[in-house]
Amino acid sequence: MKNFRQQQHRPKKNTLIIGRKAIIEAMQSGKQLERIYLQATVHGEVIDEIRNLAEKNLVPINKVPVEKLNNFNVSNHEGCVAVISKIQYQNLQDIISFIVEKGEMPFFLILDGITDIRNIGGIARSAFCFGVNAIIIPDKGVGALNEDAILTSAGALEKIPVCRVSSLMKAVDELHLNGIKVFASEMTATKKVSEMNLQEPCAIVMGGEEHGVYPALMKICDDQFQIPMPGDFESLNVSVATGIILYEATRQRGII
Amino acid sequence: MKNFRQQQHRPKKNTLIIGRKAIIEAMQSGKQLERIYLQATVHGEVIDEIRNLAEKNLVPINKVPVEKLNNFNVSNHEGCVAVISKIQYQNLQDIISFIVEKGEMPFFLILDGITDIRNIGGIARSAFCFGVNAIIIPDKGVGALNEDAILTSAGALEKIPVCRVSSLMKAVDELHLNGIKVFASEMTATKKVSEMNLQEPCAIVMGGEEHGVYPALMKICDDQFQIPMPGDFESLNVSVATGIILYEATRQRGII
Repeated sequence: MKNFRQQQHRPKKNTLIIGRKAIIEAMQSGKQLERIYLQATVHGEVIDEIRNLAEKNLVPINKVPVEKLNNFNVSNHEGCVAVISKIQYQNLQDIISFIVEKGEMPFFLILDGITDIRNIGGIARSAFCFGVNAIIIPDKGVGALNEDAILTSAGALEKIPVCRVSSLMKAVDELHLNGIKVFASEMTATKKVSEMNLQEPCAIVMGGEEHGVYPALMKICDDQFQIPMPGDFESLNVSVATGIILYEATRQRGII
Repeated sequence: MKNFRQQQHRPKKNTLIIGRKAIIEAMQSGKQLERIYLQATVHGEVIDEIRNLAEKNLVPINKVPVEKLNNFNVSNHEGCVAVISKIQYQNLQDIISFIVEKGEMPFFLILDGITDIRNIGGIARSAFCFGVNAIIIPDKGVGALNEDAILTSAGALEKIPVCRVSSLMKAVDELHLNGIKVFASEMTATKKVSEMNLQEPCAIVMGGEEHGVYPALMKICDDQFQIPMPGDFESLNVSVATGIILYEATRQRGII
């Protein structure tokens, strides 16, 4: 980790897909893209096709000024550069079915609005250590799972399944339909994490450090809890809080 | 946290003490210094005096090439620049006496070889949340508790007492003399953290991510424990591990 700063980088050329046609073909062939950078001023039928395919494939699009694309230092970008995923994203229902078929108890982590790459990496590292089945993230409003995130996760992001979904609300519905309860971590909750029953199939929602869990998402959660602390008005780092919750769940489950 | 990177900086001029005489006077008057940067090629009686005072005041000295000093962009540094502490370091025995007089149960955290500033900041944040009485750090081999560390700690480093000691071995002796047990976190330990009795006066030693707790220090600890995990050969981030241990201790103590 000491060299984290030095290892920050611009994506390497061989992790990029350059130009409109190449990006369309990549998505049509099922190649997983982390993100598409689209020049804000480009329009037309081909761009619409890119947008439609991106939406279908849950690839976030960032509208950017042309300078950002020029900075990739590639020729002929035609207003579009895509970054190939370092992560192999999985389908949520496939993962649920796989776990249930193996006879395991589903245990998921949902990240809502966590943008700091190091926090996401740290969370993935803990999730992998404590045997979380998969991490569920939205396709928007989340930090990019790039090489820095993988580095911070000590490689865990390449080992633990990650489900990228178009809507966390829909993902919670899907979990509910599969008999999986969804609990949210919320500083103002009255119930303590140790009072929760985490021995049943469940998913834990962690909110961003600034705003917590999105209110509409909180509403459809089955319950909420807090990590009790002796000091008032203090809050843990979200990666540390997640580690504590996963420890508590694993302890309750008697796996450790 | 989003602006962490942008806020990285070189120490501001008003946080520096420039030149030999000024640094000697600062130490003689009891001003707390974070670190002294000393040009590797300077020698003589005055430099010896600086060295002696620094040793007495537990101020680490970094021998540096003159270019490093020139980079501070100050004139007349005479081969010495000191950075004023952002932290008010406390005396370990004073803190112990203060806690015992208040009728509280001493609970300390010892950081051995943790160099990553963000980890130190994250640990301080958790320690403050969970009511740790003080953090004990050595005067060498530890990341500088600068503004970046304070930022990562969400300000906790300015609120929680920090004891900077010349030797962790001696600090453990001092804790023992005061009836405080010392337990080390060690991945290969057989005992689980939940099996430890953390309800008595104790200090927890956390080792660096690469090398763990220094063997000589481990030898004089009263016991060691691990955080059990279902996965093999995996390790948590040290800041997350510390959070889990502090949660477990606070849970056992019934404070939460």
